[in-house]
Amino acid sequence: MSVTGPAGFRAAGIAAGIKAAGARDVALVVNDGPRQAAAGVFTTNKVKAAPVLWSQQVLTERKLRAVVLNSGCANACTGPEGFQDTHATAEKVADVLGVGAIEIAVCSTGLIGERLPMDALLSGVDTAAKALDATDQAGLDAATAVLTTDSKAKQAFGKHDAGWSVGGFAKGAGMLAPNLATMLSVITTDAVIGGDDLDEALRAATRVTFDRLDVDGGTSTNDTVLVLASGASGVEPSKEDFTGLLTAVCTDLVRQLQDDAEGATKTIDVTVRGAVSEADAVAIGRTIAEDNLVKTAMFGSDPNWGRIAMALGRVDAEIDVAKLEIATNGVTLYANGTKARDRSEADLSGRAIEIVVDLHLGEHAATILTTDLSHGYVEENSAYSS
Amino acid sequence: MSVTGPAGFRAAGIAAGIKAAGARDVALVVNDGPRQAAAGVFTTNKVKAAPVLWSQQVLTERKLRAVVLNSGCANACTGPEGFQDTHATAEKVADVLGVGAIEIAVCSTGLIGERLPMDALLSGVDTAAKALDATDQAGLDAATAVLTTDSKAKQAFGKHDAGWSVGGFAKGAGMLAPNLATMLSVITTDAVIGGDDLDEALRAATRVTFDRLDVDGGTSTNDTVLVLASGASGVEPSKEDFTGLLTAVCTDLVRQLQDDAEGATKTIDVTVRGAVSEADAVAIGRTIAEDNLVKTAMFGSDPNWGRIAMALGRVDAEIDVAKLEIATNGVTLYANGTKARDRSEADLSGRAIEIVVDLHLGEHAATILTTDLSHGYVEENSAYSS
Repeated sequence: MSVTGPAGFRAAGIAAGIKAAGARDVALVVNDGPRQAAAGVFTTNKVKAAPVLWSQQVLTERKLRAVVLNSGCANACTGPEGFQDTHATAEKVADVLGVGAIEIAVCSTGLIGERLPMDALLSGVDTAAKALDATDQAGLDAATAVLTTDSKAKQAFGKHDAGWSVGGFAKGAGMLAPNLATMLSVITTDAVIGGDDLDEALRAATRVTFDRLDVDGGTSTNDTVLVLASGASGVEPSKEDFTGLLTAVCTDLVRQLQDDAEGATKTIDVTVRGAVSEADAVAIGRTIAEDNLVKTAMFGSDPNWGRIAMALGRVDAEIDVAKLEIATNGVTLYANGTKARDRSEADLSGRAIEIVVDLHLGEHAATILTTDLSHGYVEENSAYSS
Repeated sequence: MSVTGPAGFRAAGIAAGIKAAGARDVALVVNDGPRQAAAGVFTTNKVKAAPVLWSQQVLTERKLRAVVLNSGCANACTGPEGFQDTHATAEKVADVLGVGAIEIAVCSTGLIGERLPMDALLSGVDTAAKALDATDQAGLDAATAVLTTDSKAKQAFGKHDAGWSVGGFAKGAGMLAPNLATMLSVITTDAVIGGDDLDEALRAATRVTFDRLDVDGGTSTNDTVLVLASGASGVEPSKEDFTGLLTAVCTDLVRQLQDDAEGATKTIDVTVRGAVSEADAVAIGRTIAEDNLVKTAMFGSDPNWGRIAMALGRVDAEIDVAKLEIATNGVTLYANGTKARDRSEADLSGRAIEIVVDLHLGEHAATILTTDLSHGYVEENSAYSS
C-alpha cells in the first residue's frame, strides 16, 4: 500500500510510450481533499531540471491538487524549451482535472539533456486521468511508472491508532543509472495539517532519512520528495505524532532504496557517534560512505579498517586518533591509537555490514546508509549508454 | 635518471625481507653536500603515519642528510610504538652515516595498522648503506624499492643550461592499493638554494602538480614529497628558473603516476576555465574527477555530459547553467543551457580523454588529472586483502 492508502487520494500509472517496450512511464497522484496542503524538498544541485524549477515555484503556495510524474526522460539541461514542456504538462493535467496549473507539481526522471516526447506525454496524461483510482493496485501502478533501473517498486504505509495514515512510493537513490537521474518520492496523508506544519515535518523527516542515504555522492538534477495532505480523516495529529509516522514511512522507503541500489551486493550502515556535533557525525559518515576504497573493501568482505581510518582523517571535523574506535559488525578493530584485534575476527561475508566509528569526543551521532562498489555498479554505469 | 642525476647524491635500493619474494623494499637517498637544504610537503589527512609525524618534525630545520624509505608496511595507526620504530630507523641511518638523527627523514608505504619488522628493516639499512652509489642504476634501485602495486618505477630528470639539475622518483597516487597507503616522492637538486626558498618553490610546484592528481579522492596517511638540495653545481638559479624546472620534473612524475594508477584504462584531464577564482576551478575539476558516474562513463568511452553537468552542479562554487559549456575531446556537447551537439559526435575510444568545462564567468582555470573507474580498479581493491 502506498499513496492510495490514506483517504482522499487517487492514483494511476500507465504506459504512454516514452519508455521503450510498453512499460509504464506516466503516473498521476490526485488529492481529492477536502484539503490540499503540500510541501516539498528538492535537490541542492545547482543544475536543476525544469520540473524541479517548476515544482519549487508552485510549492511556494504550499498547496497541490495533483502530481504528474514521468520516467524515461529527466527534462534536465533542456533550456527554456524544456521549462515550457514542463509548464505545458502541468497545464494539461490542470485542464483534465478542472483546476489551475499552479496547483500541479511535475516530476521527471530519465535521460539528462533530451527533450520530452510531448505528444506521447500529453496523451498519456489523458489515459492516466481515466485510470485514476483509489485502490492499492492504482498506487502500485503509479509507483511502478516512475521506475528506471530499479528492480522493483518501493512502497510504504503506516496507520496511526487515531485513524489517520501516511503512505508513499519512491524510486532510485542518488544518481543511479546509466545517464539517468533522480530520486523521486511522493508521500500522501489524510491527516489534517496545514502547509507550514507539513513543510516543517517533511524537512525534519527527510533530514534523517533521504538525506542520509548516499550511494555514490551524486545528488541528481531532479531529486524531489513531495508530501500531500488531504485532511480526509478529519483527525489533526500532534506535530510529534505526525513527524514520527512520516519519518517512519520515509525510513521504510529509504531502506528499500538502499537495498535496491545499482550493483549493490552489500547494504552498509555507517554509524558515527561520540562526535562534538551532528554535522561532524554526518560529514564523517558521508565521507566513509563515499570512499571508493572502503566501498571496494566491503565488496570484498574485507574488514579493512585502515581504509576507514584514512577516509575519516580526510574530513574537516574534530577527531583524536588516540581516542577513536573503529568496529565492523560488532568487532572493535582499532582503539587507543593502534590495532585492537585482528581483522580476520570480523565476519563481513553477509549482505548487511555495520561500520561503527566512536570518536569519544561528544554526544552526537548519525548513521549514513550506503552500499558497496561492485563490478555490477561499474557494469551498469559503463556498459550501457542509453 | 632520477635522484642520482644531480651532483652530490648517492642512493641505494635493496631487499631487506619486508616484502615477500625478495623484492627491493628499502631505499636510501644521501645528500653529500656541500649543502643540505631540504623541504617537504605532507598529507593533509588527520590520521598521519608515524614517519610523517617524524619527518614533519625534522624538517622544521629545513636540513636533511638523508632519507630512508621502506615499502611493505605503512607504519600508520601503530600508536607510540610505531613512532618509536620510526625514530629507531632514523637513529640507525644516522649511526651508519655518522650524522644526527634529526637530519634523517623517514618514509613508509604499505599495509596500514601493522608494525614494521624492525630486525629486517635495521639490517636492511646496513645493506643499503653499503650499496650507496651515484650511478643511474642506484637511483633506479631506490625508485624501485618504494613501489607497491605500481607496475613500474617512475623517474624524472631535468637539466638547466646553467649547469644545475633536478631529478626525482615517485610511487603510487592517492590511496591506490589493497590496504596500502601512499604517494611518496623524493626529489634532488644540485642547485645552490636555501631551505626557505626551497620550501617556497616546492609548495608552488606541488600546488599545480601533485595536488592536482586525484585518482579516488583518497589522501593517504603517508603522502610525502621531499626535496633535497646539495649545492654541488655551485650555481644559484633565480627563484623563477628553479621553480620552473622543479615544476617540470613534478609534472613528469605526476603524469607517470596518472598513467600507472590502479585499474586505469583511461587518463582523463579535467580542465575548468572561465572560473571566478582558481579555488572554484580546482573544486569543480576535483568533483568531476572524483565522480563515480563520470568515471564509469569514461570507462565505457561514453561522452555522457549529463553526468558532468550533475557533478559540477554539486559544487559550492559560482556557476551559471545558461553560460557554461561542456566539451569532451574537443566537441562541445552542452552550451546555452541545452544540448549543443549529439554526444555520438565525440569519440572517447582512445586512452586519453579531455573534459573541458568553460564557465564563462571569469579568468581562472585549473586542470585536474584523473583516471576512469574500471573493473580493474574494483578487482584490485576488493579481491586481495593482503
